[in-house]
Amino acid sequence: MSIRLTELVERLGGELTGAATLADVAVTGIAPLDAATASHITFLSNSKFRSQAEHTQAAALILSPQDNAALGPVYGGARIVTANPYAYFAHAAQLFAARNAPPVAPGVHPSAVVDTTASIAAGATIGPLVVIEAGAVIGEGARIDAGCFIGRDAVIGDATHLYARVTVQHACRIGRRGIVHPGAVIGADGFGFANESGAWVKIPQVGCVVIGDDVEIGANTTIDRGALADTLIGNGVKLDNQIQIAHNCQIGDHTAIAACAGIAGSAIIGKYCSIGGAAMIHGHITIADRVHVSAGTLAMRSISEPGQYTGFYPITKHGDWEKSAALLRNLPTMREKMRAMEKLLKSLTETDTEKR
Amino acid sequence: MSIRLTELVERLGGELTGAATLADVAVTGIAPLDAATASHITFLSNSKFRSQAEHTQAAALILSPQDNAALGPVYGGARIVTANPYAYFAHAAQLFAARNAPPVAPGVHPSAVVDTTASIAAGATIGPLVVIEAGAVIGEGARIDAGCFIGRDAVIGDATHLYARVTVQHACRIGRRGIVHPGAVIGADGFGFANESGAWVKIPQVGCVVIGDDVEIGANTTIDRGALADTLIGNGVKLDNQIQIAHNCQIGDHTAIAACAGIAGSAIIGKYCSIGGAAMIHGHITIADRVHVSAGTLAMRSISEPGQYTGFYPITKHGDWEKSAALLRNLPTMREKMRAMEKLLKSLTETDTEKR
Amino acid sequence: MSIRLTELVERLGGELTGAATLADVAVTGIAPLDAATASHITFLSNSKFRSQAEHTQAAALILSPQDNAALGPVYGGARIVTANPYAYFAHAAQLFAARNAPPVAPGVHPSAVVDTTASIAAGATIGPLVVIEAGAVIGEGARIDAGCFIGRDAVIGDATHLYARVTVQHACRIGRRGIVHPGAVIGADGFGFANESGAWVKIPQVGCVVIGDDVEIGANTTIDRGALADTLIGNGVKLDNQIQIAHNCQIGDHTAIAACAGIAGSAIIGKYCSIGGAAMIHGHITIADRVHVSAGTLAMRSISEPGQYTGFYPITKHGDWEKSAALLRNLPTMREKMRAMEKLLKSLTETDTEKR
Repeated sequence: MSIRLTELVERLGGELTGAATLADVAVTGIAPLDAATASHITFLSNSKFRSQAEHTQAAALILSPQDNAALGPVYGGARIVTANPYAYFAHAAQLFAARNAPPVAPGVHPSAVVDTTASIAAGATIGPLVVIEAGAVIGEGARIDAGCFIGRDAVIGDATHLYARVTVQHACRIGRRGIVHPGAVIGADGFGFANESGAWVKIPQVGCVVIGDDVEIGANTTIDRGALADTLIGNGVKLDNQIQIAHNCQIGDHTAIAACAGIAGSAIIGKYCSIGGAAMIHGHITIADRVHVSAGTLAMRSISEPGQYTGFYPITKHGDWEKSAALLRNLPTMREKMRAMEKLLKSLTETDTEKR
Repeated sequence: MSIRLTELVERLGGELTGAATLADVAVTGIAPLDAATASHITFLSNSKFRSQAEHTQAAALILSPQDNAALGPVYGGARIVTANPYAYFAHAAQLFAARNAPPVAPGVHPSAVVDTTASIAAGATIGPLVVIEAGAVIGEGARIDAGCFIGRDAVIGDATHLYARVTVQHACRIGRRGIVHPGAVIGADGFGFANESGAWVKIPQVGCVVIGDDVEIGANTTIDRGALADTLIGNGVKLDNQIQIAHNCQIGDHTAIAACAGIAGSAIIGKYCSIGGAAMIHGHITIADRVHVSAGTLAMRSISEPGQYTGFYPITKHGDWEKSAALLRNLPTMREKMRAMEKLLKSLTETDTEKR
Repeated sequence: MSIRLTELVERLGGELTGAATLADVAVTGIAPLDAATASHITFLSNSKFRSQAEHTQAAALILSPQDNAALGPVYGGARIVTANPYAYFAHAAQLFAARNAPPVAPGVHPSAVVDTTASIAAGATIGPLVVIEAGAVIGEGARIDAGCFIGRDAVIGDATHLYARVTVQHACRIGRRGIVHPGAVIGADGFGFANESGAWVKIPQVGCVVIGDDVEIGANTTIDRGALADTLIGNGVKLDNQIQIAHNCQIGDHTAIAACAGIAGSAIIGKYCSIGGAAMIHGHITIADRVHVSAGTLAMRSISEPGQYTGFYPITKHGDWEKSAALLRNLPTMREKMRAMEKLLKSLTETDTEKR
C-alpha cells in the first residue's frame, strides 16, 4: 500500500519541498540511500553521506535543514525537511509496517485455555494454545500470540503485544503499548538463598515485576520477580535479547540495554542510560542517569557521574596477548622496581652535583 | 493466614523470649527491619543493623544470641533467638509462602497430551497443554505447569515443580524437590562435531542429564546432555537464570552458580563452590571444592586450592581506559627497558664507587 | 541393533584390517578407548593415546595409517584404517544413533493448530501442540516437535528437525538437514530505535532470517531478523546454546560459534571461523575467513588476517588481582616516569663519559 508524500507530511510533520508536482507522488516503502528506487522514500541522517544522497534514485529524501540547504541547489527531487531525519524515518517506517501488516481478528482462539475468572478485553486477540490463568487481565487491543503463558492475576496493558511463547508469571504487570519477544520470561523467582551449614535454603520470592509503558523486551530475556519488594522497569525502557535482570532491580525510564547484558540483584540504573552488549552490572550498586557502560564491561561499583565507562581487555593476536597478559601480575613488582630506580637515580644525580 | 509465634518456634526451633504475653501474637508475614509492621516478623542477620532493629515496629524479631544479648535490655518486644537468623528467616518465609499459595488440584489437565505409557503419580499435577512422551515418569506430588515438554523416558522426581514452558529431553532425570523455572532446557544435544575437510560432522550426543535432589534451575538456563557419558548435577545445586552447562560437565553438591555463567564441556566443578555472574569456566578443567570464581571472570586452567579467584578488567572512564589499555601491549617492552635501565644503573653505581 | 564391521566399511569407507575372521564381528555401539567392551568399536584420534589403544577391549579400533603402522605389529584385533579417525567415529556414531532412534510416524498430530493455507509435505512429522501459520511451508521429511511455532510464510527445509518449543517468526527460512534445539528463537525483531529527545522510536524490522543447509542451532539461541535486508547464516554453520546473533549479521559457511557468544548488529563473519564461548563481536565490523576468536574475548575492530585472537584478563587469586588491576590505570604514568628515567640516565652516562 502506498502513501502520498502530502499525506506523510500531514501525519508526521516536516516540510515538503522540491519539485511541487512531486507532492502527489506515492511511495510504497523505505529503503537506504543506495537501494531506494522511484517507489521508495529514503533518508539522510548523517551529513557525510551527502554525496551519496545526491545520486539516490528515491522518490523523496528525508533530511535536516542543514543538509537541505547544502543539497537543495543540486538535488532536484522531493524532500521532507525535519530536525531529526532518523526519527522521521522510524515513524514513517512504522506507518508503512502498519499498512503492510496482516489484519488481526480480535477474539480468543478456540484452542486457548483461559480461566473463566480472567478478564479479556473485547478488542484483545488471544492466539492458539495460549494459557491464561485465574484473575489475569488482558487490556484493550492487546495481542497475545501462540503459546504464551499468563499466570494468575498478571496484567497485560492495552495495546501490548506478546509474541509467541512468552511467559508472564503470576501477578506481574506490563504497561501499555509494550512489545515482548518470544521466549522472554517475566517474573521467575529471583536467586535468593540463605546458607545453612553449607546447604542453601530457598527464600521465597514474593515480590513481582512491574513494567512501565512503551517497554520492549527481547527474545529469551529474563526479568526476575522481587524478593520482598518489586522489580521495576521504567517507561520507555528498551531491552534487547538474552538480558538478565535480577530481583529487585530498578531500571530508569528510557534506558536501553543491549543483548546479553546482566544486571545483578538490587542494582539501580538511572534514566537515559545505555548498557552495552554483554556488560555486567554488579548487585546493590547505583548507576546515575545518562551513564553509558561499554560492551563487555563489568561495573562493580556505583557510578555517580554521567559519561561513558569502559573496562575490557583489548583483543590482540594470541601470542601477543600471552606475553602481555602474563606480565599483568608483575605490575606491583614493576612499580616497586621503578620506585627503587627513581630513588637511586635521585641519589646519583645528587652525588653527581655534589662532586661538581 | 497468620501463625502464632509459639507455633513458629515449635516448627522451626529457636528460643522465644521477650514479653511473655507476646508468645500468642500471630504474624501474617515477614518484612525487612524498616518496613515491618505490627503484623510482621522481621530478622536481624547483620549486627551492624542493631540500631535499626531497636526501632523496628515488627511483632517479633529473629536474631542471634549475640545480638539478643546486646539488644535484649533495650528492646522490649518478642524475640526468637537462633544461631542463624537468616536461614531462620528463609524457613519462616517458606512457611508463610506455603500458607498463602493457591491450592493445587492433582490430576492431568484435559488439554495435556500424555502418552499412555507414561507413568503419572496419583498426586502429581499436570497443567494445561503439557506434552509427556512415552515411558516418562512423573513422581508423587510433582507439578508440571502449563506448556512443559517431557520427552520419552524422562524422569521427574517426587515433589519437583516445573514452572511453565520447561523442556526436559528424552531420558533425562531430575531428582526430588527440584524447582525448574520457565524456558529452561534440560538435555539438548551437546556441541560436538568432528572436522572433515573444514566441514563439521555431528557427533550424536547419546548421554543424558542426571540431576540430583533439591536442585533449582533458573529461567532459560540450558544443561546439555552428555556425548557418551552423562552430564551430572549434584544434590542441592542452585543455578540462576541463563546459565549454560555444556555436555559432560559435573557440578558438585551445593554449588551455586549466578546468572549468565557458562561452563564449557567436560569441566568438573567441586562441592560448595560459587561461580559469579557471567563467569566462564573453560572445558576439560577441574575446579576444587570451595572455590569462588568472581563475576565476569574466565577460568582457563584448573584450580586446585580453595579460595576466591578473579580476573576482569576494572571499569574506568572511557578516556582513561583507552590510554591504559593501549599500553597493555607495551608491557613486554616496558619490562625489557626496565631491565636495561637496571643494568645500566648497576654499572653506573659501580663506576661511581670505583671512582671514589 | 548391531552392525558388522564389513557393513560399516561398505557404508563409510576405510580399510578393514587385522584378524580376518573378525570381519564378521558385529558391534552395537561406540565407546571411548578405556570404556569399550567386546561389543563396541572404539577410535584413536590422537597418537598420544597409542599405549591406551593397545590395551582396549573393543571389538575393533578406528585409526590413522600412521597409528596403524605403529600399532599393527602389537595389536592383534580388527582395525579400520582411515585418514580421519575422528570424523569416521562421528559418521559411525550417526549410523548407530539412527538405528537406535525410535521410529517416527509422519503426519500431523491432531492437537497441532495448522492453518489451511500452510503446505506440509506428506513425509513431514508435526508434533503435538505445534502452531503453523498461514502460508508456511514444511519440507519433505522435516520434523517439527511438540510446541513449536512456525509463523506465516516461514519455510522449513527438507529433513530439518526442530526440537520442542522452537520459534520461527514470519517469513524466515531454514534450509535442509538443519537441527534446531529447544527454546531457539529465529526471527525476533532486531534491536533498532531512533532517538527522539531522549525517548526511543522503534524502527520496524522488515528483513528476515535466511539460514543455509546443514545448520545446527543450539538451545535458547536467538537470531534476529534484519532491519531492511536479511540476517544471513551460511551453509554448515554450527551454533551452540544461548548465542545471540543480531540483525543484519552475516555468518560465513562452516563457521562454528560456541555457547554464550554474541554477535552485534551488521557484523560480518567469514567462513571457517571459530568464535569461542562468551566471545563478543562488535557491530558493523568484518572478521576474515579462518579467524579464531578465543573464549571471553571482545572483538571491537575488524580482523583482516587469519589466526587466533585473544583478549581477556587472566584469572588469579583475588588479592593478587586487586593489586595488579589497581595499577592498570597507572600505566600511562609508569611509562612517563620510565621515559624520564631513560632521559636522565642518558644524560648521566653522557656526563660520565665527558668527565673521563
